[in-house]
Amino acid sequence: MRKRYLMTPGPTPVPAEVLLAQARPIIHHRTAEFSGILEQVTTDLKYIFQTRNEVMTFAASGTGAMESAVANLFSRGDKVVVASNGKFGERFAELTQAYGLEAINIKYDWGKMVVPQDIEVKLAADSEIKGVFVVHSETSTGVLNDIKAIGEIVKDHQAVLVVDSITGIGAVELKMDDWHLDVVMTGSQKGLMLPPGLACVAISDKAARAMETSTLPKYYFSYKSALKALRKAVPTTPFTPPVSLIIGLSAALKMMREEGLENVIKRHSLLAEATRKGLEAMGLWLFAPEKGRSSAVTPAWVPDGIDGKAVVKIMKEKYGITIAGGQSHLAGKIFRFGHLGYFDRFDIIGGLAALEMTLTELGHKFELGSGVKAAEQVFMENAK
Amino acid sequence: MRKRYLMTPGPTPVPAEVLLAQARPIIHHRTAEFSGILEQVTTDLKYIFQTRNEVMTFAASGTGAMESAVANLFSRGDKVVVASNGKFGERFAELTQAYGLEAINIKYDWGKMVVPQDIEVKLAADSEIKGVFVVHSETSTGVLNDIKAIGEIVKDHQAVLVVDSITGIGAVELKMDDWHLDVVMTGSQKGLMLPPGLACVAISDKAARAMETSTLPKYYFSYKSALKALRKAVPTTPFTPPVSLIIGLSAALKMMREEGLENVIKRHSLLAEATRKGLEAMGLWLFAPEKGRSSAVTPAWVPDGIDGKAVVKIMKEKYGITIAGGQSHLAGKIFRFGHLGYFDRFDIIGGLAALEMTLTELGHKFELGSGVKAAEQVFMENAK
Repeated sequence: MRKRYLMTPGPTPVPAEVLLAQARPIIHHRTAEFSGILEQVTTDLKYIFQTRNEVMTFAASGTGAMESAVANLFSRGDKVVVASNGKFGERFAELTQAYGLEAINIKYDWGKMVVPQDIEVKLAADSEIKGVFVVHSETSTGVLNDIKAIGEIVKDHQAVLVVDSITGIGAVELKMDDWHLDVVMTGSQKGLMLPPGLACVAISDKAARAMETSTLPKYYFSYKSALKALRKAVPTTPFTPPVSLIIGLSAALKMMREEGLENVIKRHSLLAEATRKGLEAMGLWLFAPEKGRSSAVTPAWVPDGIDGKAVVKIMKEKYGITIAGGQSHLAGKIFRFGHLGYFDRFDIIGGLAALEMTLTELGHKFELGSGVKAAEQVFMENAK
Repeated sequence: MRKRYLMTPGPTPVPAEVLLAQARPIIHHRTAEFSGILEQVTTDLKYIFQTRNEVMTFAASGTGAMESAVANLFSRGDKVVVASNGKFGERFAELTQAYGLEAINIKYDWGKMVVPQDIEVKLAADSEIKGVFVVHSETSTGVLNDIKAIGEIVKDHQAVLVVDSITGIGAVELKMDDWHLDVVMTGSQKGLMLPPGLACVAISDKAARAMETSTLPKYYFSYKSALKALRKAVPTTPFTPPVSLIIGLSAALKMMREEGLENVIKRHSLLAEATRKGLEAMGLWLFAPEKGRSSAVTPAWVPDGIDGKAVVKIMKEKYGITIAGGQSHLAGKIFRFGHLGYFDRFDIIGGLAALEMTLTELGHKFELGSGVKAAEQVFMENAK
């Protein structure tokens, strides 16, 4: 018997409570019972998104939600700014291109933070810019962008701010309304502790106004249809929703509510800190800059002379722990240690221990046990 | 203790084997293990669709798959024919409108069959027509359109034939390649016996050629991306797939393979026949015409003087059986008795018995037990 551990930034482990909730016999979606669940889920998601507006759900992965923001709020030829510093920022650039928007791409090296002032300069120079796209927590690099500062800038312009918080929500602080974010999206297989297949999107009143003038084609992802259905006396969805995932979500949100959003965020912050200290104690260099580190995932450089793919392979095959490698040009150069969603201290301890054994086998020199020791110290200092 | 029965044309009951498969701990999708499952699922789906081409899967409901056909194969202003005889045919009309196609709408009364010759006339009159949209099994009316005959017609023109077989596949015969169907789609919560949230689409070589010239925007539903990923040495998906639903699908397809597709279709045909005979024996009139009745769902007229909504309500509240009412202008006038997917003889017997008790309570005059008797006779004649 060998247990298996999923330590990637998505999919993330699903609590047994959620697995079992979604395994209940299927119910019909046009019933008072399902509408009641949908209503509760919507209320709970508003709390998670920190917004007064409805949070829509779609049967889709996160990319579908990213596409929905493009299709619902813009028209062909609209000028937008896409600030990208990783794979998912680049996906926004691809999406705006696919839909014929005129994108001003501000590209940063993977691992650097988006500089809010760069966006300010573009907006100040061109009053026709209709939107700004940015990723909150860049899953590909572990970089956390300062969307609060970006929100402060964009709010004074006509542009709407579209934020991919797919690995942000539930791991790091996000206050949609207070921070003036106009579109925020997440995916189910991240901080929400569900299997993949469900995407959640909320829009501000400013975004709702942008929606009124958009002429790009949309149907399945139409916000108008989704909001109209959600606002009925008995809330529903325009098309068949992924019933089992919504029921699983209801169980996951109950767990998050009971822990309290602030505590959920604090827990992630502590797990991330212990991971970072553990990796550094093993002589590794963290990939993301100190001021912009997401609590969702901690990427580190593979030590010189060691094959990064071998690290991921040994972790998986010998120790049953799935971590993520680097993406695109970072493949083999970094690995990404996920601690997003259903994680606690001993998941981190186990992951670090496996990494210590793996790196030792591959010839990296450091004191066995030092990573775990550093993590323990973080946990002791923060134990209640 | 009161058992609950789901007898709607979707969502349909999910076998415990599938519920439990999808409740297994989540695995990462970029692994050999998941790719192996995806490969098997694709192979099995080819068998279910009766095609040599790949069957793509998307995290989406069936409507997303319908939209994908519009976005992937056409360009703004393209002329297409939409033949509609129910709610889902009308959805194709709405989709082609949302994407700016120039649709020639052939509309039939709900409950009538699409007349293949009407399509032939349109195609013969205008060689610029690029596509024909038709629903196979109209869930809203139980009407089965003759897509084999339509395929024979469309194959000699440049137009591609797009078929919504969302409640067809797994319930009635469909031979994608032999019948010259160019795009075929289904949803998971129908004949595939899964919860909703997964859509499956296959395209012909002719459709693949149409894809090359399409200029409509697409990204999440891009066939090119999906096919490229599926055709890799280790098959995958461009975006995070709904892992738990794909694993559930793998369990469902195993059951279908073991039963054999021909037997699956025969079982549905028998269940539908018993339902029809049972309803008629109770003095009810079937809604769909004799030559075009789907084995997925059997709608019947509510007898004069009886409130159709009360039928559905009593069935659910007193007997725990969820059937579907009529949609749009048929609300309250018909009810729809679903027998699609995970159904056997005693589901039909139970459903008919509940309906007998319900109609008797509501004052409909007939001999109690006569519907069940008629169904038993059908089953006895066909017992092996």
